Amino acid sequence: MNTAETSISPAILEALKNIIGADNCLVDAETLAHYGHDETEQLVYWPQVVVKPQTTAQVSAIMKLCHEQKLAVTPRGAGTGLSGGALPHLGGVLLSTEKFNRIIEIDERNLQVTTEPGVITEVLQNAVKEKGLFYPPDPSSRGSCFIGGNIAENSGGPKAVKYGVVKDYVLNLEVVLPTGEIIWTGANVLKNSTGYNLTQLFVGSEGTLGIVTKIVLKLIPHPQHDLLMLVPFASLEKASEAVSAIFRAGFVPSALELVEIDALKIVSKMVDSTAVPVNDEIAAHLIIEVDGNNLDLLMQDMEAIAALLNDFDAGEIFFADDAQQKTELWKLRRRVAEAVKTSGYTIEEDTVVPRAELPKLIRGVKELGKAHGFHAVCYGHAGDGNLHIRINHPTIKNSHGNAEMTAALEKLFELVHGLGGTISGEHGIGLIQKPYLKTVFQPANLMLMRAIKKAFDPNNILNAGKIFDLQDA
Amino acid sequence: MNTAETSISPAILEALKNIIGADNCLVDAETLAHYGHDETEQLVYWPQVVVKPQTTAQVSAIMKLCHEQKLAVTPRGAGTGLSGGALPHLGGVLLSTEKFNRIIEIDERNLQVTTEPGVITEVLQNAVKEKGLFYPPDPSSRGSCFIGGNIAENSGGPKAVKYGVVKDYVLNLEVVLPTGEIIWTGANVLKNSTGYNLTQLFVGSEGTLGIVTKIVLKLIPHPQHDLLMLVPFASLEKASEAVSAIFRAGFVPSALELVEIDALKIVSKMVDSTAVPVNDEIAAHLIIEVDGNNLDLLMQDMEAIAALLNDFDAGEIFFADDAQQKTELWKLRRRVAEAVKTSGYTIEEDTVVPRAELPKLIRGVKELGKAHGFHAVCYGHAGDGNLHIRINHPTIKNSHGNAEMTAALEKLFELVHGLGGTISGEHGIGLIQKPYLKTVFQPANLMLMRAIKKAFDPNNILNAGKIFDLQDA
Repeated sequence: MNTAETSISPAILEALKNIIGADNCLVDAETLAHYGHDETEQLVYWPQVVVKPQTTAQVSAIMKLCHEQKLAVTPRGAGTGLSGGALPHLGGVLLSTEKFNRIIEIDERNLQVTTEPGVITEVLQNAVKEKGLFYPPDPSSRGSCFIGGNIAENSGGPKAVKYGVVKDYVLNLEVVLPTGEIIWTGANVLKNSTGYNLTQLFVGSEGTLGIVTKIVLKLIPHPQHDLLMLVPFASLEKASEAVSAIFRAGFVPSALELVEIDALKIVSKMVDSTAVPVNDEIAAHLIIEVDGNNLDLLMQDMEAIAALLNDFDAGEIFFADDAQQKTELWKLRRRVAEAVKTSGYTIEEDTVVPRAELPKLIRGVKELGKAHGFHAVCYGHAGDGNLHIRINHPTIKNSHGNAEMTAALEKLFELVHGLGGTISGEHGIGLIQKPYLKTVFQPANLMLMRAIKKAFDPNNILNAGKIFDLQDA
Repeated sequence: MNTAETSISPAILEALKNIIGADNCLVDAETLAHYGHDETEQLVYWPQVVVKPQTTAQVSAIMKLCHEQKLAVTPRGAGTGLSGGALPHLGGVLLSTEKFNRIIEIDERNLQVTTEPGVITEVLQNAVKEKGLFYPPDPSSRGSCFIGGNIAENSGGPKAVKYGVVKDYVLNLEVVLPTGEIIWTGANVLKNSTGYNLTQLFVGSEGTLGIVTKIVLKLIPHPQHDLLMLVPFASLEKASEAVSAIFRAGFVPSALELVEIDALKIVSKMVDSTAVPVNDEIAAHLIIEVDGNNLDLLMQDMEAIAALLNDFDAGEIFFADDAQQKTELWKLRRRVAEAVKTSGYTIEEDTVVPRAELPKLIRGVKELGKAHGFHAVCYGHAGDGNLHIRINHPTIKNSHGNAEMTAALEKLFELVHGLGGTISGEHGIGLIQKPYLKTVFQPANLMLMRAIKKAFDPNNILNAGKIFDLQDA
């Protein structure tokens, strides 16, 4: 566990206090330790100081100061990230957006919401749902993650298969640049061909190009009904073949999740639930949801999907009958990541491939585990081809900085790239996935990305050393 | 009409012929004149040479040569653009993508298509439709425009209101950079959080950052049915208020178009059609389409929408009963732009605002016309808030380079910006909208865009002087 090697200089601490007040400027050990980790592996890096600005002007003043002083700044939302994007690995200033927690306006006339970045995603979803509106992207951590962090990582979640990811909902962003300048990236409109798409460049840029201080999101009418079923399969490969077949038949489920049985055993035990059958004849479950405004039509779709699944040796299908059953199933699914992590599966990968290639990916993961002495469980958003792979190694608990695990993961990503896929579907590159970018990109791609970073952040102070290595930036 | 002031140097012409063969390297006056204009106002600029490469390697070799020689290159698709993006205003090399006309693969397993950029959008749509698949973005020019040009401009079209624009379908691009290097921008996946989103940066960059040579698009299952109705309104403002009300009631039509009666009169005459009632009691029509897989449900939606429109003084609704009626209505709508242009409405603007602000925008346009002595007709994708404004001025036929019209348009865009909107929804900035970017962006936005351009194109050769002025780039 690293603690910051040096303390913040008294002059800079004083300047920061002048901007945001002493109460929002913290250097005590407990605070530094808390903000020194997120949900990534078991990594901890202490910042020198934690600052909690409340206004865009304060963020701007902080960035101007740090730009002049060439002081590293790490922005942080709720700290639920899985690639180390919020880890202050260079010490310096940890800038928390937690006080940016207001939903500014729900515009029912234009189906838009303007919000600050520190609002919990589920809180935002519930607020717009009260007006009959829907913001679909919902990472598993939606009960604790911030909408700002979702934008930094371009989060997806289970609904992405029908409704798209964060990038498909962001219309306009107020951003403080690393130099302290404040811009709006676009306009509050559904179509925009006005200059380079800076909005889309900020989405998924992992807090390296600017600090988002206001967000305008597109909303859609909330669907009135949804139906959920749980389908067991005797083989992982049959389950993933079935995924592809559902789309080929013309259905677009609102969620299509795959969870391997080992993961379900662990999570069922953790939350003491018997909602999902687990036995030795089952290798994996698919969780399939459809939604819309006509219940009869949804029932027909569910029956047709169920009939189709017979061709893939599906077991007995369980239809969630009421809200309680649905909630319990989703709760189980959402807690898989946490459950497997606490059970020793500390290393997580966020692979994504064209969905029909999932069987090959899963087979490859299992072979890689045998060759490298680890056990892996697979789960995730199979409808998108986005497979989370959790790795339990008897001795290696962090991939970061470990040569043996890095070599194994390089092989994994070479396989993924060969299947037309890439390293991360929704968790980002952050600190820990940097070594693998060269597996999927040509040198020219990385050169362009570094040039963009340099244009936005000439002193390389904002979340420096994330996505690419510092020395190359 | 400008002709190129200087001819191409014999040495460079020889080098180009060595790359692509003499047949694909044209300098005759007829060819230069043809490629000297697109659909923008009445502007013409001759290039020095027109080149028609057929492979990515050839494009790369051409760009390497031009990069070394610091020679201007203007990429061109089908030349249907409305902002002058394909105009070779600096002379130099006009690079046509017309020989990149193969659909490479329709991947029915993963619902993706890989295509070259010179395929006509409608040809691509029909090819995937034969497999039951749907590529929704369809600009009015879909029968002649290229998919590559659609990507350059981030085109929308009538279906965007439900299905999104080009950017929502582009998964991965093969691009030749201005330096001649070849990259793939992303991966063939539905979710991607792997480094900066270069794919999205290329979409809508108007051929200034690279030349797209292969395109991977997401497809969706093709809806089985659609219904269309035509609704007359006695006032433009009531019509545009009705647009907003339809969405607030929870409906998401697959198209929601508004056409002012003056435009309909012109187009009806041009195509000799009586499909749309035009009389003095009608100010505008809405064209409303719903689509989906259940015909009964669509009928219910149409009836509910029709009932709702009564509150906005809608006239007698015409339901298109069969394929022929639908085709005729759409043909009329798609030919509005051409019809009004040939009738003297030569100046076009592509404004976009939050849809509830449409009445204010339309009112402002009419007032501006009175103040500046022009007549304007409005039509477009009202469901998206994307209003095309065609201007007929008794003496001014080009806005480009005209101080009086530029002053009037500055006022228009100040209004648009004040309503939360922006300059272009789907036509781009190109050559002719450059003066107005400062109306909607802060200096820092433009500085960032120029820095991006410089990073991608250090010698400023590729479509230079588009989006921003040359001297500032």
